[in-house]
Amino acid sequence: MITTGVSTDLYAEVLQFYARQMQALDGGDFQAYADSFTDDGEFTHSPGLPPARTRAGIAAELTEFHRRRFSGTPVQRRHWFNHVVLDHRLDGGIDSTSYALVLTVHPGQKQPEIGPSCVVRDVLVRVDGDLRLASRRVDHDQDR
Amino acid sequence: MITTGVSTDLYAEVLQFYARQMQALDGGDFQAYADSFTDDGEFTHSPGLPPARTRAGIAAELTEFHRRRFSGTPVQRRHWFNHVVLDHRLDGGIDSTSYALVLTVHPGQKQPEIGPSCVVRDVLVRVDGDLRLASRRVDHDQDR
Amino acid sequence: MITTGVSTDLYAEVLQFYARQMQALDGGDFQAYADSFTDDGEFTHSPGLPPARTRAGIAAELTEFHRRRFSGTPVQRRHWFNHVVLDHRLDGGIDSTSYALVLTVHPGQKQPEIGPSCVVRDVLVRVDGDLRLASRRVDHDQDR
Repeated sequence: MITTGVSTDLYAEVLQFYARQMQALDGGDFQAYADSFTDDGEFTHSPGLPPARTRAGIAAELTEFHRRRFSGTPVQRRHWFNHVVLDHRLDGGIDSTSYALVLTVHPGQKQPEIGPSCVVRDVLVRVDGDLRLASRRVDHDQDR
Repeated sequence: MITTGVSTDLYAEVLQFYARQMQALDGGDFQAYADSFTDDGEFTHSPGLPPARTRAGIAAELTEFHRRRFSGTPVQRRHWFNHVVLDHRLDGGIDSTSYALVLTVHPGQKQPEIGPSCVVRDVLVRVDGDLRLASRRVDHDQDR
Repeated sequence: MITTGVSTDLYAEVLQFYARQMQALDGGDFQAYADSFTDDGEFTHSPGLPPARTRAGIAAELTEFHRRRFSGTPVQRRHWFNHVVLDHRLDGGIDSTSYALVLTVHPGQKQPEIGPSCVVRDVLVRVDGDLRLASRRVDHDQDR
């Protein structure tokens, strides 16, 4: 049985939150991305590695990840999302499960690299009225 | 002239319905997918083949389709949707036309197979307050 | 800091507007696409070329573009959108920034051509209660 989980307002708010958050990430604004987490937020972006913790830790990890992976190769990455499923948690937070697909565009190449295909599992909470990520875990479909 | 068709609440409800339905399908929960149809629902998933009918028939068809196509190859499929267009029907149902793209991820391969690109044409109805598919027809863009 | 920008109703209205608009475009209904602009709307669809102007001009440009690019090759194109970010402008319009990805399906080929990956920057306004594009500019990620 397929049931719809949350209010229209919350669903649209989360879609807008993700749109801004991922445009910030792909725009290289790692601080804005980190600021979308709670103070003690956890971000597990690569399977098998320990999570980055706290806003400062998440921003530092992203900066280092991009330096290591993409320095010297000025790619434009785009993180697409699809099929966002939201459910209220007993502790007041919100469970969110979404599809994600990473596109990597190289200068002068019309066809982007496609992949990995991922599932993003978030716990969202409210802080002073705004949505924040308490945690995000990204699983890669090819590693299942 | 582009007009917006349905209420905000209905639009968000359908997006949530699709998100849950397709996560169930891609998670291999064929019964949950079949249960998103009406008792006498019709599912035409492959051009040129007769539709699967009734929940039991749809669940059986999906199980058989996946056994035939993917047995021995533990792929993860992901059905992405985009640009959902909804219109009220005179009979009280809802016409829905959406883009769909199938991704197939093979273990250890970062880049998914992409395709087919499809158009999904649904008729949605309410049963005891919940949305259900009275029918779904999937057309493949490469067969036009 | 990630903030959510606009009301639920407006967000859903814009998603529906884009869904209908892009299904019209990909269906070859260039007049309907042009009619989604204001009378004096501007459409900059290719980097380095001057924008098409006015509804008649936009419809003519699209017709000519498709004749030049796709005559003799009956492809089906699909313009996917993702991560729509909306912000109110001081002049009463709405800034919209979205990801777009073009798929081109060739007859008999299950795997579509993928790309270019783009960013679509729109200014939306209301005309007689309906949304219209005052301007659209499309930037290609591989040209950055």
